Amino acid sequence: MPESAQGADVRRAEAVHLREAVRLAEQNVTNGGGPFGCVIVREGRIIARGVNRVTATNDPTAHAEIVAIREACRMLETFHLEGCDIYASCEPCPMCLGAIYWARPARVMFAASRAEAAAAGFDDERIYHELPLPLGERSLATIHLPIDERTGPFEAWARQQGRTQY
Amino acid sequence: MPESAQGADVRRAEAVHLREAVRLAEQNVTNGGGPFGCVIVREGRIIARGVNRVTATNDPTAHAEIVAIREACRMLETFHLEGCDIYASCEPCPMCLGAIYWARPARVMFAASRAEAAAAGFDDERIYHELPLPLGERSLATIHLPIDERTGPFEAWARQQGRTQY
Repeated sequence: MPESAQGADVRRAEAVHLREAVRLAEQNVTNGGGPFGCVIVREGRIIARGVNRVTATNDPTAHAEIVAIREACRMLETFHLEGCDIYASCEPCPMCLGAIYWARPARVMFAASRAEAAAAGFDDERIYHELPLPLGERSLATIHLPIDERTGPFEAWARQQGRTQY
Repeated sequence: MPESAQGADVRRAEAVHLREAVRLAEQNVTNGGGPFGCVIVREGRIIARGVNRVTATNDPTAHAEIVAIREACRMLETFHLEGCDIYASCEPCPMCLGAIYWARPARVMFAASRAEAAAAGFDDERIYHELPLPLGERSLATIHLPIDERTGPFEAWARQQGRTQY
């Protein structure tokens, strides 16, 4: 098969997974949840699904991507997702994008943009704006109190035999 | 009491809570976990504690702050932490800071800096650098596939009667 046709097949497979994430997002609204969904794919197969469960479970961290990452890691019995692709119905918020970096997947794909999320009333864009600001310029009071004990945990970590890096 | 003395008392109370977060972090290393701890305080009382459980529970999202936020919300039976203060042994990573924004506490305080975390071998600083970059400039492949269905979930959300905002 010529490379361009192969590329088109790959794009078609990606669109199928992304449509599943969007379908989950829309279904979740009917179930009383937020309009976000996510699937995680490994070797062409969906291994985990997630939808936004913030209000359903009283957990502000239960965004679709976080739920799916936790489920995929539980399935794989690891704390990383190397070789996996993450498909999100919407551009991940900074919390979820941070979680994705820690999980180390191969790629992340999304359908709606953060601007479209903002238009629908979600704060992602504002948090993206806040995170790079110096502490004193953020709308959230963020205070550095460099107490003497602060590096004790890191020193204990450096001394710890057989520690598990992550 | 003169205002300056009252201010000093407040700072002392803050340092006590922050020392507890650092103590939890150091203890967690001995228990085989990462060197991070967090406490959440409401009306002067600790209502939730968290330590890093990434490797212990195969969950890359189980940073101390996320664990503590989930626990505090479970206790309070809400999905926000208005009026609470979050004390972290180390400057929150972007994932945790994003989670903190969604949880909407009054303040966040931390002891060690992200530079001290980087020196101890933790990636927080790198992720702070990556998040504001345009998609194509990130080290993680981040791909926007704006499929036609992408805004369906937001349209369903707008139509949904009695939706719970968060």
